Amino acid sequence: MPNALSILPVAGLPEIEPGHDLAAAIFGQVDLADGDIVLITSKIVSKAEGCIVELDEIEPSAFARSWATQWEKDPRVVEVVLGESTRIVRQVGPVLITETRHGFVCANSGVDQSSSGAHGRVLVLPADPDASARRERARFAELGVDVAVVITDTFGRPWREGQTDVAIGIAGLDPLHSYIGQHDPHGHEFRVQEICVADELAAASELVKGNTSRVPVAVVRGYEWERRADASMAPVIRDAERDLFR
Amino acid sequence: MPNALSILPVAGLPEIEPGHDLAAAIFGQVDLADGDIVLITSKIVSKAEGCIVELDEIEPSAFARSWATQWEKDPRVVEVVLGESTRIVRQVGPVLITETRHGFVCANSGVDQSSSGAHGRVLVLPADPDASARRERARFAELGVDVAVVITDTFGRPWREGQTDVAIGIAGLDPLHSYIGQHDPHGHEFRVQEICVADELAAASELVKGNTSRVPVAVVRGYEWERRADASMAPVIRDAERDLFR
Repeated sequence: MPNALSILPVAGLPEIEPGHDLAAAIFGQVDLADGDIVLITSKIVSKAEGCIVELDEIEPSAFARSWATQWEKDPRVVEVVLGESTRIVRQVGPVLITETRHGFVCANSGVDQSSSGAHGRVLVLPADPDASARRERARFAELGVDVAVVITDTFGRPWREGQTDVAIGIAGLDPLHSYIGQHDPHGHEFRVQEICVADELAAASELVKGNTSRVPVAVVRGYEWERRADASMAPVIRDAERDLFR
Repeated sequence: MPNALSILPVAGLPEIEPGHDLAAAIFGQVDLADGDIVLITSKIVSKAEGCIVELDEIEPSAFARSWATQWEKDPRVVEVVLGESTRIVRQVGPVLITETRHGFVCANSGVDQSSSGAHGRVLVLPADPDASARRERARFAELGVDVAVVITDTFGRPWREGQTDVAIGIAGLDPLHSYIGQHDPHGHEFRVQEICVADELAAASELVKGNTSRVPVAVVRGYEWERRADASMAPVIRDAERDLFR
C-alpha cells in the first residue's frame, strides 16, 4: 500500500535576488530529509537566475504594438511574450496562448508581470528549468540531502476554469509513472495509462503554497521514487504529431 | 501561513457492489475527523450506484460499427461511449475525445473497460457526480463527521503526456479559489488568477491511491475550507464561448 504523504509549506525565505543560493536558503528554513521532494515556484528561480527583463530596453515590433493597442496592453510586455514563444497557439480577443521555447503551452509564454519586485520589469521563465532543477538538486546534495527537485508554474488549461500548478522542470525523479503492461486487481492489463506524477506533485504543492502568502516552496515527504540522473520534462512534452489540440 | 497537509491512503475496502454504502465502508477503514476532505475514485462510485452497462444488451449503430471495425475496437463499447457523450470534440485515428453529458471533455466519455469486475461489462461515469458527492457527504454527516467529498477520475489533457486525476463531483467546498481583487506581497492586484483547488486535491490524492493497488480512496487532512452547501463542479466547466479549444 502507498505511504501517507505530508506536504509542508516552506516559509521565511528572504526576498530572492539575482545570484541568491536558493537551495541554501530553503535548506535553512526546513528540516529536509533524504527522499523529500522540493517543489519550487518558478518565480523565485527566475529571480535567482536573473530572468528579469527591463521593459525600458524593449523595442516593440509593429505586430506587438498593433495588438497591444487593440486590447489595452503594454506593447513592451507583448513583445517580451512573443520573444519567449516559438509559436502562437491561439490569439483570440485579449488572450494569447503560446508555445514557449521549452515546448510548454500556456498563456503569455509564462511571462509574469505580478511579482518582479519593481514596476517596469517582468519575469520570464527560467531558460532551462530542468537544468535549474538539476543545479538545485546538486546543491542540496552538497548540503547533505538527497532530494528530488521540481520547478512549478501556474497554468490554465482548456475546457476547465481555474488554473493549477504544473511541473516545468525536474531533477532526480521521472515525471511520468507508467502502468502500461501492469495489471489491475482484476487482471486487466493497462494499455494506455501513464500518470504525470510531476504535475500531481506540483498541484499538491500549490495547496500549501498559496499565491498571496510568501510561501514559494513546498516539500512532499513520504512519496517513494526511484533515483534517475537523466530525469527531465522532455517526455511530458507531447510530440506535434500526437497532439490533437495544436 | 498555510498548514502542512497530510494525504492518507484508505485501503481495506471490500469489492464494491451496487447498493453498497460507500461512506460507511470508508468510515470503517479510516479515522476521519471534521474538516477532512475525502477523495473517492469515480470507479467505485459507479459500481456502488450500478452505473454498469452489459455489453450484450447494446445494439451498435452503423457509425459505431464502422469506426470500431476501422480501429479494431468493440463496437458495443464505442456505442456506449457515444451514448455517454453530447459531442465529439476530436476523432483522430483510434482516439475519441468527447464531451460528456456533465460537460467534461475526456477520452471515451470516461467509459471504463478495465475494472468492471467481469468481462462483458463496462462502467460509465456516475449520472450526477455532484449529487453523488453530496449524498456521500450527507451520509458521513449521519455517521458523525463533517467532511468535504470529491469524486475523482483520471483524465488526459492536451499538449502534455501523462494523465492526472481531476475532480468530477464535489460537495461541501468550492472547487475554485479566487485571488481576483487580492494583492500579492508586492501590492500587485491579481486580475485573473483563480485556482482549481478541486483538481489540485484530486491530483494530490492520486499520489497515494495508485492504480494497481486497491486504494480507491484518499483523505486530505489539514486543508482549510469554507463550508458551502451549494458547491458543485458547474463553475469549473468552461462556457463554450470562453473556450478556445472546442
